[in-house]
Amino acid sequence: VRVITLTTDFGAADWFVGSMKGVILALNPRVQIVDITHGVPAGNLRAAAFALTASCRFFPKHSVHVAVVDPGVGGHRAALAIQTEDYFFVGPDNGVLSVALAREKIRAVFQITNEQLFLKPLSHTFHGRDMFAPVAAHLSKGLPIQNLGPSKKDFVKLDWPQPHRSANSVTGEIVYIDGFGNAITNISHEPLARPAESSGALFAKRRRLCSIKPSYQAVPRQKAVAVPGSSGFLEIAVNGGSAAAKLGLKIGDAVTFRPKAP
Amino acid sequence: VRVITLTTDFGAADWFVGSMKGVILALNPRVQIVDITHGVPAGNLRAAAFALTASCRFFPKHSVHVAVVDPGVGGHRAALAIQTEDYFFVGPDNGVLSVALAREKIRAVFQITNEQLFLKPLSHTFHGRDMFAPVAAHLSKGLPIQNLGPSKKDFVKLDWPQPHRSANSVTGEIVYIDGFGNAITNISHEPLARPAESSGALFAKRRRLCSIKPSYQAVPRQKAVAVPGSSGFLEIAVNGGSAAAKLGLKIGDAVTFRPKAP
Amino acid sequence: VRVITLTTDFGAADWFVGSMKGVILALNPRVQIVDITHGVPAGNLRAAAFALTASCRFFPKHSVHVAVVDPGVGGHRAALAIQTEDYFFVGPDNGVLSVALAREKIRAVFQITNEQLFLKPLSHTFHGRDMFAPVAAHLSKGLPIQNLGPSKKDFVKLDWPQPHRSANSVTGEIVYIDGFGNAITNISHEPLARPAESSGALFAKRRRLCSIKPSYQAVPRQKAVAVPGSSGFLEIAVNGGSAAAKLGLKIGDAVTFRPKAP
Repeated sequence: VRVITLTTDFGAADWFVGSMKGVILALNPRVQIVDITHGVPAGNLRAAAFALTASCRFFPKHSVHVAVVDPGVGGHRAALAIQTEDYFFVGPDNGVLSVALAREKIRAVFQITNEQLFLKPLSHTFHGRDMFAPVAAHLSKGLPIQNLGPSKKDFVKLDWPQPHRSANSVTGEIVYIDGFGNAITNISHEPLARPAESSGALFAKRRRLCSIKPSYQAVPRQKAVAVPGSSGFLEIAVNGGSAAAKLGLKIGDAVTFRPKAP
Repeated sequence: VRVITLTTDFGAADWFVGSMKGVILALNPRVQIVDITHGVPAGNLRAAAFALTASCRFFPKHSVHVAVVDPGVGGHRAALAIQTEDYFFVGPDNGVLSVALAREKIRAVFQITNEQLFLKPLSHTFHGRDMFAPVAAHLSKGLPIQNLGPSKKDFVKLDWPQPHRSANSVTGEIVYIDGFGNAITNISHEPLARPAESSGALFAKRRRLCSIKPSYQAVPRQKAVAVPGSSGFLEIAVNGGSAAAKLGLKIGDAVTFRPKAP
Repeated sequence: VRVITLTTDFGAADWFVGSMKGVILALNPRVQIVDITHGVPAGNLRAAAFALTASCRFFPKHSVHVAVVDPGVGGHRAALAIQTEDYFFVGPDNGVLSVALAREKIRAVFQITNEQLFLKPLSHTFHGRDMFAPVAAHLSKGLPIQNLGPSKKDFVKLDWPQPHRSANSVTGEIVYIDGFGNAITNISHEPLARPAESSGALFAKRRRLCSIKPSYQAVPRQKAVAVPGSSGFLEIAVNGGSAAAKLGLKIGDAVTFRPKAP
């Protein structure tokens, strides 16, 4: 049993995701298909890239990760299939896969051109159904990736903000706001020494926003706190509320982390 | 492994879809259940009919398509099970299945009356769970369709707008607006000669709306275009935006397609 | 084949549910995972408890029901695994499981403490992924529940309103409003004598709201009616409309049921 994951901006109102699943199951009836999310804002490559990055490593080895946020469908963008040490990644060559791939050991990069694998006639507006779904199904059945098309030297990297580290602070920005209103930064908490126990504070808009604590529960209800988030990044939360709403935070806002002097 | 698809107006907030899946899996633990959509506006038979029509043929043969938009539940409407050359269709006899069925080769029409297959007590408000789910599960396991109830001569046809063709134009209307704001018409693009390469224009509200092009990318960003849509119909889009919002289009608006004189 | 159900407030926009499914499938690739709902309002234990209660008994025996509405994650609340005659229930010990459990025959109550089963490092903000998902996967594979941790004497009960019965009426309250706008009360219709055929009326805000009828169809369109709902409780509906919007009903509103004198 193999797993195919789907990350798209197709939403829940229409039949687009269902059609992709129909195509996949017609080729591989036993595959497990998992929705990562279809609630990516239309055309928002960064949101999709972050969702994939935050979740892809929790799936079993050899899973096929398909991401279709594809505003350039029908134009000149290439279609990608990439094999890493643990997974396959399939989607348009527009950067949507690149943030997740930056953490993977890449084994092979191929351009998808083998029309024999596509639905016919290939639509010019829905490659998710006509190209990426059948390609993912074939990969899940063991088709060698080199059968998809020619090898490819490189792929499009999404412009992704990097935090800046100085002697006694790290400055990054908010890159994602989740459904609870938690504001997730691009400051990875792994390099921080024992982050859950570390003390320090997060600053934004020239004021001290909150302390770093191990969990939401470390502060009273409705109070702000920065926690080492489950996606691997420092995250600004309000215990029992929405940090985005309560603190007026939005994607792109700069934040500075200052560890407490020892 | 068989597939059961679900198309409903049950939404994502409640437990209704989950309950149907529980009933199905209790009868057939190995079936693959696929959501086409549960985001049909409450009671909107046309939206459900179109979603089913646009997606049903992408599923493997012998799939069981269940559509439950059922404002007349508990009243006098009949319950239908229909076998076509490739699929089964199950749902209330209120027209929700009829648009998809108009494209299928119908083999047998049955009324669902066999109470032995229903959950007991049969609720008067949720036949999706108590009647259609178990019937679909039984069909997916190979129960002959004639075991569901008596043969039926006919079924309710949804009033579905047909385009009008004249010597040098086709006039139809907008029948669906998808989550991206694309306005899908009832003008099938298959009969158009080489639609993707055809030239011509779409008119609405007495003004020229846009040209026909093979893909969204054929026009600059934020510009309107009509494309041969992935559902088989001409579709009005705005590259990178919402055609419905930008052009003020809504369901029922008349549109006229004029091919370019050769 | 076993079933794991998921009930959460994680929404559809993010990757949280997908991550849980990845963790589950990495441990048990053949399990069937069913979403009951992820649309519970953030932190709303009552809504989640009701969704689970209304749906859990429609799943096959030995299903593992996981409910993660967990505002206290990372704090001192315990984690529960409970075996009943027919099912397993897994989630935080905050009452979210307790309403469903009140109808089950409880066989064993355990606290989840066995760190060997958790993802490492265990996050302090997402036990759904790091603790409850792997525990559910192990239970679905047959791990004895006593391997999860020590036996537990009791668990937190959610404060759930009980209806008051007098000689000729029952007074309860609205406990849930579903996506159609139906207002579901806490008045169970099973003890009512032949509820579907019973006559009587429902009162709210000192006025007569509607009659009890077997189905929505028993009243004209846009008229109010109380029906024996599919979840086992009396439910106030408007045929073809939203009772909540049309009648101004909300959760917590008191309602009184008066059977007609015989």
